[in-house]
Amino acid sequence: MKISARNHLKGTVKKIVPGVVNTEVTLEIAPGVEVVSIITKSSADQMRLSLGKEAYVVVKATDVMIGID
Amino acid sequence: MKISARNHLKGTVKKIVPGVVNTEVTLEIAPGVEVVSIITKSSADQMRLSLGKEAYVVVKATDVMIGID
Amino acid sequence: MKISARNHLKGTVKKIVPGVVNTEVTLEIAPGVEVVSIITKSSADQMRLSLGKEAYVVVKATDVMIGID
Amino acid sequence: MKISARNHLKGTVKKIVPGVVNTEVTLEIAPGVEVVSIITKSSADQMRLSLGKEAYVVVKATDVMIGID
Amino acid sequence: MKISARNHLKGTVKKIVPGVVNTEVTLEIAPGVEVVSIITKSSADQMRLSLGKEAYVVVKATDVMIGID
Amino acid sequence: MKISARNHLKGTVKKIVPGVVNTEVTLEIAPGVEVVSIITKSSADQMRLSLGKEAYVVVKATDVMIGID
Repeated sequence: MKISARNHLKGTVKKIVPGVVNTEVTLEIAPGVEVVSIITKSSADQMRLSLGKEAYVVVKATDVMIGID
Repeated sequence: MKISARNHLKGTVKKIVPGVVNTEVTLEIAPGVEVVSIITKSSADQMRLSLGKEAYVVVKATDVMIGID
Repeated sequence: MKISARNHLKGTVKKIVPGVVNTEVTLEIAPGVEVVSIITKSSADQMRLSLGKEAYVVVKATDVMIGID
Repeated sequence: MKISARNHLKGTVKKIVPGVVNTEVTLEIAPGVEVVSIITKSSADQMRLSLGKEAYVVVKATDVMIGID
Repeated sequence: MKISARNHLKGTVKKIVPGVVNTEVTLEIAPGVEVVSIITKSSADQMRLSLGKEAYVVVKATDVMIGID
Repeated sequence: MKISARNHLKGTVKKIVPGVVNTEVTLEIAPGVEVVSIITKSSADQMRLSLGKEAYVVVKATDVMIGID
């Protein structure tokens, strides 16, 4: 499926922390650049996420904030 | 301010598209890796965002989805 | 792409209202059951959304609230 | 209370999975059309959600994405 | 309607900035404490929001971040 | 860091409920006006949040809904 969320960043699964309802997944999308995601446990199980697997970080533009020092 | 959002990715402003209420800002966070953000126009003006400026992509973990082919 | 968002509801495009940065799209997902989405204008253009086109409503479980009378 | 979220879809509670902080609730909003929500456990308890109860799926338009095959 | 979003803060409409698709609304929820909301223009019109009107700020707990100096 | 989220409301930590992946934090932002936030457990630990500590509620304008009676 092609989806309207503007940001699709290719990466590799680096870490998985399962919880009761949610699971925390960390992806590396460029050397040393990691993104943390929290998805439902059932989604993580259905997608058979495992360390080293190729996956995409998907984020809507309206969910991305900008920060400056 | 230090903020609870889990993802802070350092980058450079590549493109700015202002609208009436919102403004679209594109940051490069690694060579060839771009992230699009939509923030309010007044925030973009207050932060004096301009092309080439250093800035951070800030995203909550619960707003990051995972996709697989 | 298969995505972690839990809700994928098949429907048909009923209405499109384009803005400067965002575009409002209405889908019918069951007889008389309509869902309104606001996505970025460029996503709507890229997906070549048009009236009558088959599409999916995609929503994360954490973005769905529950209401009672 | 009348609320600004654009989408109010009437349905029936089909499934409830309680967690420590969050609870997962599934509503049927049309024959065979189910929507999964994750709300805080205390909200689920306060609303006395139970199987078969009438309830609404409430979603902001900016939280609804569009997908196409 | 009673809704699962955890935060309902009573206030008064202080400012309204209409856009093409979205409208920016500012509420005062305590002396000198203002909250800015962006909702769809059609919701703002339907709710007949006007300066001085009593209204609530409604926010999901998962959409509230914490910051420290 | 200065961040694009429009709402920064100063307050004091009143209550903390830790979970496996997420933690629920309540802040008082004005006499009798409380806001509930759910952040990741690791963020709460990193920020060393404790009862009585000064902190900010940070919310994007697009995540704030409006309600009327």
